[in-house]
Amino acid sequence: MRIDGRKNDQTRNIKFTPSFLNFPTGSAMVEFGRTRVLCSAVVTEEVPPWMRAQKKPGGWLTAEYQMIPGSTSERSKRETTKISGRTQEIQRLVGRSLRSALNLEKIGQRTIYIDCEVLDADGGTRCASVCGGMLALRLAVEKMLADGTIAENPISSYVAALSLGIVEGEVMLDLCYQEDSNADVDMNVIMNEKGNFIELQATAEKRSFNDGELAQMLSLARTSVANVIQTIKTVKA
Amino acid sequence: MRIDGRKNDQTRNIKFTPSFLNFPTGSAMVEFGRTRVLCSAVVTEEVPPWMRAQKKPGGWLTAEYQMIPGSTSERSKRETTKISGRTQEIQRLVGRSLRSALNLEKIGQRTIYIDCEVLDADGGTRCASVCGGMLALRLAVEKMLADGTIAENPISSYVAALSLGIVEGEVMLDLCYQEDSNADVDMNVIMNEKGNFIELQATAEKRSFNDGELAQMLSLARTSVANVIQTIKTVKA
Amino acid sequence: MRIDGRKNDQTRNIKFTPSFLNFPTGSAMVEFGRTRVLCSAVVTEEVPPWMRAQKKPGGWLTAEYQMIPGSTSERSKRETTKISGRTQEIQRLVGRSLRSALNLEKIGQRTIYIDCEVLDADGGTRCASVCGGMLALRLAVEKMLADGTIAENPISSYVAALSLGIVEGEVMLDLCYQEDSNADVDMNVIMNEKGNFIELQATAEKRSFNDGELAQMLSLARTSVANVIQTIKTVKA
Amino acid sequence: MRIDGRKNDQTRNIKFTPSFLNFPTGSAMVEFGRTRVLCSAVVTEEVPPWMRAQKKPGGWLTAEYQMIPGSTSERSKRETTKISGRTQEIQRLVGRSLRSALNLEKIGQRTIYIDCEVLDADGGTRCASVCGGMLALRLAVEKMLADGTIAENPISSYVAALSLGIVEGEVMLDLCYQEDSNADVDMNVIMNEKGNFIELQATAEKRSFNDGELAQMLSLARTSVANVIQTIKTVKA
Amino acid sequence: MRIDGRKNDQTRNIKFTPSFLNFPTGSAMVEFGRTRVLCSAVVTEEVPPWMRAQKKPGGWLTAEYQMIPGSTSERSKRETTKISGRTQEIQRLVGRSLRSALNLEKIGQRTIYIDCEVLDADGGTRCASVCGGMLALRLAVEKMLADGTIAENPISSYVAALSLGIVEGEVMLDLCYQEDSNADVDMNVIMNEKGNFIELQATAEKRSFNDGELAQMLSLARTSVANVIQTIKTVKA
Amino acid sequence: MRIDGRKNDQTRNIKFTPSFLNFPTGSAMVEFGRTRVLCSAVVTEEVPPWMRAQKKPGGWLTAEYQMIPGSTSERSKRETTKISGRTQEIQRLVGRSLRSALNLEKIGQRTIYIDCEVLDADGGTRCASVCGGMLALRLAVEKMLADGTIAENPISSYVAALSLGIVEGEVMLDLCYQEDSNADVDMNVIMNEKGNFIELQATAEKRSFNDGELAQMLSLARTSVANVIQTIKTVKA
Repeated sequence: MRIDGRKNDQTRNIKFTPSFLNFPTGSAMVEFGRTRVLCSAVVTEEVPPWMRAQKKPGGWLTAEYQMIPGSTSERSKRETTKISGRTQEIQRLVGRSLRSALNLEKIGQRTIYIDCEVLDADGGTRCASVCGGMLALRLAVEKMLADGTIAENPISSYVAALSLGIVEGEVMLDLCYQEDSNADVDMNVIMNEKGNFIELQATAEKRSFNDGELAQMLSLARTSVANVIQTIKTVKA
Repeated sequence: MRIDGRKNDQTRNIKFTPSFLNFPTGSAMVEFGRTRVLCSAVVTEEVPPWMRAQKKPGGWLTAEYQMIPGSTSERSKRETTKISGRTQEIQRLVGRSLRSALNLEKIGQRTIYIDCEVLDADGGTRCASVCGGMLALRLAVEKMLADGTIAENPISSYVAALSLGIVEGEVMLDLCYQEDSNADVDMNVIMNEKGNFIELQATAEKRSFNDGELAQMLSLARTSVANVIQTIKTVKA
Repeated sequence: MRIDGRKNDQTRNIKFTPSFLNFPTGSAMVEFGRTRVLCSAVVTEEVPPWMRAQKKPGGWLTAEYQMIPGSTSERSKRETTKISGRTQEIQRLVGRSLRSALNLEKIGQRTIYIDCEVLDADGGTRCASVCGGMLALRLAVEKMLADGTIAENPISSYVAALSLGIVEGEVMLDLCYQEDSNADVDMNVIMNEKGNFIELQATAEKRSFNDGELAQMLSLARTSVANVIQTIKTVKA
Repeated sequence: MRIDGRKNDQTRNIKFTPSFLNFPTGSAMVEFGRTRVLCSAVVTEEVPPWMRAQKKPGGWLTAEYQMIPGSTSERSKRETTKISGRTQEIQRLVGRSLRSALNLEKIGQRTIYIDCEVLDADGGTRCASVCGGMLALRLAVEKMLADGTIAENPISSYVAALSLGIVEGEVMLDLCYQEDSNADVDMNVIMNEKGNFIELQATAEKRSFNDGELAQMLSLARTSVANVIQTIKTVKA
Repeated sequence: MRIDGRKNDQTRNIKFTPSFLNFPTGSAMVEFGRTRVLCSAVVTEEVPPWMRAQKKPGGWLTAEYQMIPGSTSERSKRETTKISGRTQEIQRLVGRSLRSALNLEKIGQRTIYIDCEVLDADGGTRCASVCGGMLALRLAVEKMLADGTIAENPISSYVAALSLGIVEGEVMLDLCYQEDSNADVDMNVIMNEKGNFIELQATAEKRSFNDGELAQMLSLARTSVANVIQTIKTVKA
Repeated sequence: MRIDGRKNDQTRNIKFTPSFLNFPTGSAMVEFGRTRVLCSAVVTEEVPPWMRAQKKPGGWLTAEYQMIPGSTSERSKRETTKISGRTQEIQRLVGRSLRSALNLEKIGQRTIYIDCEVLDADGGTRCASVCGGMLALRLAVEKMLADGTIAENPISSYVAALSLGIVEGEVMLDLCYQEDSNADVDMNVIMNEKGNFIELQATAEKRSFNDGELAQMLSLARTSVANVIQTIKTVKA
């Protein structure tokens, strides 16, 4: 049994609070157990310079991620002079994943910024950011549809993410921080609502892993990701 | 009458939520109307290099402040390569104010970090940061006393802050963003529980002001600051 | 009596040398006792990007401030990779104060740069910068009027600044460095020629202060600021 | 058939030139078709500050990666003020992969720097960097064993990497730049000599992918990675 | 006799490998004994902002220089956050020298980037960079002439560079690293094919030098530079 | 005749004002015609980290150089985020030159900072910086000798610098800005009091130069540098 009493194939309690913030086009607080990430989707009426230069039609989505200094038991240094490699990896991952959910041509010459602020970091913050960002994006899209900014829903397929790992020889879903810092293998799976893969990242932290273990992790992820997507699609705005 | 129906000498609804975060020594969410700032107080077991070099006894308190990108109606650019002059001014002000509340010798060779994350910015965020930071500091001190880290309460005098201004010829308390961006004169008053001044900052934004107007602003601030201090001291942990 | 023999309500010897530099539109060296600041006003034929974007009429004034490394008894590190919080605060203050002296619409689509180089720092450098910058600005305006660049004098009201403090229980005017580093309370008062306030900044360095002390400081500032303004207006170019 | 006449399960011509450089402990030029990466392994007699602080036994390996400006048909801007997110991701990946090949305790209190300079970039540079870095590491280890710096071989398991993708519906091995920029799905597989996974990274570039396609990619990678490992282990120093 | 058996007026073995890289317009590897520098000349269809602003006709040439970390016996730190003074001096020197070889009006509104990557650093890298850059430039010009990008050869006079020094009282040509780090005087001479000077830099490292020594160094440089220019002009593309 | 009526072999009016600043160990204002540079020499009781690491005996001298924004007719941008290549070259040159004047072992484990602030820039600022820095250094040394900080004079040989050029076919001494911006060839000569060379820098700006022209420039420099050295040595403190 796991440190918090869960079974290996069980996620923590996952909760979404839509429209947590006053000003962004869309926003959501997402909780995976004690992990809390505050996500916003802000729509701006311009595209990045490289798109303008290429005269590419449609728009863009980009993501930023940050842990607030008080989100960890030891204070995290604020990234005010340069962004760490870890942060960059995460915001690139969140951006790629959410772009895959959109038909970018349908949002017009706009940029959607997904901002993810980690308020409490107890493991799985990058997956929570994808999920919270997806809900903020849904709400921003609904607002844009409601006020006539766009005519057609640009979301082609919802996505969600879950972390997994091998801890003391056992494949487990949705690791909390203590499990994660102890894991032999660490994996993030991002899938869409058709049950296909958007992104797989698996890393041997302490030992390598084989085909059988990979298959077991992928199978564990599949059902739970589908459930999270269902929640994101249906939670009341 | 003001745009939100308040009288000139009335603050917005002020609300404190203690211990909003899971990990810091102390934390608090503070709301001034729609303005929301999440404050934490994290205690670390080391002092800044310049104190070590001077072999100064006691500890230090420092503050950081940031607006999350989604806190404003137009997205605020994240400060990841350098901190703006405005941000630096605010974090220096918050730090000075809260250091004045402490007997730094009584906290031992430690640094207390006050981190202020502005979640919603509707005016008055620097004053809200001082108030929320004061509560987070109180809670951190209580925890340190409870677990024996320190033996004696280092808080010598609670402080709180309120903004004021002259808007269309009238002196008003606790400006919201729309009032603030329209103000002729802008002022921040920070006082302690003895009713003395810790910091005064008054700026002629559109026109200069005279002794009478200054006196009126100071008098308006006095009562309300005392009320906020009372709340910070007594809100249930 | 004070360390240099002055009375509490006495400034140091204040001296202005107009047109100290060869190239800027206007320039002045200002001395407050041993403190010396070299100020220039350079007029450029363009406005900041944000003004262009907003198609705002008129121009802008901005200020920069720097202490040369040899201006202090211990060498000051040159700020070549980032500007300290203190420097930013000062240059923002100088800029705000001098903008308040100008009708910005009357300078046309131009930017006036006020540059303040502290050659010797013996306290009061930010106030000296405001005063020296005001004279450099006056000289630049006179040159622009003389050569027909502008048709009408844009200076609406001269400004000047003085520092004050409470040192060992006594309110004193125009602190030198040794007094300043010992002060309980530190204040900067910037007023215009109408005798109104442009900016007040008072900080409790070692102890808080009360209404009476504030009143005493403001009264002390009033007469001397008026004298300095008179000098700035009348010193021979 | 592919643009360069290869079959889908065929790599480009892979060639290693050991000891290309004069000064590093170990070095190698690696070529995957027209892609060329120059790798070095430099051993230094110190560990990173965080290891010293934790008094962790053993050593560390870290990697840096850079494309020279002339490595691409349009000149690549040199990264002299900050490292891009892409570069950071790659050097973190190379570092993790090669650390997994080592028993870090056996290298003593040392840091091994793997530096990868991309001279010609025609796709697959991160995988080539892992492979070239592995050979440079082998040669550095052999030198350290020969001169008695270390007593025991610290390489626990050789690793190698290959890129794969789905291009126009077909799973292909070792994409060149033109194939890569056209791929629906992009994957990097890093395995060790036991045939286990060290790192998997699969990204949906233009469309999502399913279990069957994943299985096909993994199977294609397996044989070729084993061949490359064999070459790295046996190429004459 | 010198440490590698050369006579004082003898250069090391100098070798050029044209077109070492796959993608740039022109490229060359140059070797001065164990020193190896990889140079490329990339032509881009735009001029620097300051030229555009001045509407200056013709084009520009600029140079960058970098030592790879593995080019020295102790690893050289990669310059990823700022460029050192030494690097800046060298790239400015290479740029100035090669611009002097060109009639910039004849290259049209283009910028030619000369990139110099030092692979092995055994002294004389800045002179090798000028020579290798000159060959890369020649090859780029020949390509531009061949494909009709330009109509007329813009090279007005070939240039080459050699280092010299006074070591233990003797004037020597083309110092290797060990000689260089021991030199009393260090000199770089850049001349054109007419036998005139383009740039002289002589520095007293350990002692000053007199007219006679200067004359001796200049005379030694003259013949060898002419030989190197001849090679650069005639080496088979 | 030259634009300011001088003969080709004549310098501008050169003037030194010793001890211009209140706080540094030594300081001097130097004027070459309209060019004015304020130099200080500050002695600190520590050596650079690399000297400490090498346990090298003696001390160090380093130089910094800056043009104030108002020193030129168009405002010079202040270098607050990075130092330009030109500035770095100049401060390296000033540092090398003045180090050559000192026996560094005789100053003890100290660092002397030479700071050069260009107040008015009318050509020749780097040479003026060397000369003004030499006087500031002399004064700092005299102070250290007087107060017993050091026992023996560490100045082994005074140095001074002059600029020269070829303008419209004529070799000229000490170019002013207008001459300099028009020069075919630009040269800086730094010599010591023995009449030997410390540093030569000659650059073909618009055309190359030959042996005869070089000889003419060197001869012109010799007498004037000797005169300037004499002034620096004898000007009354």
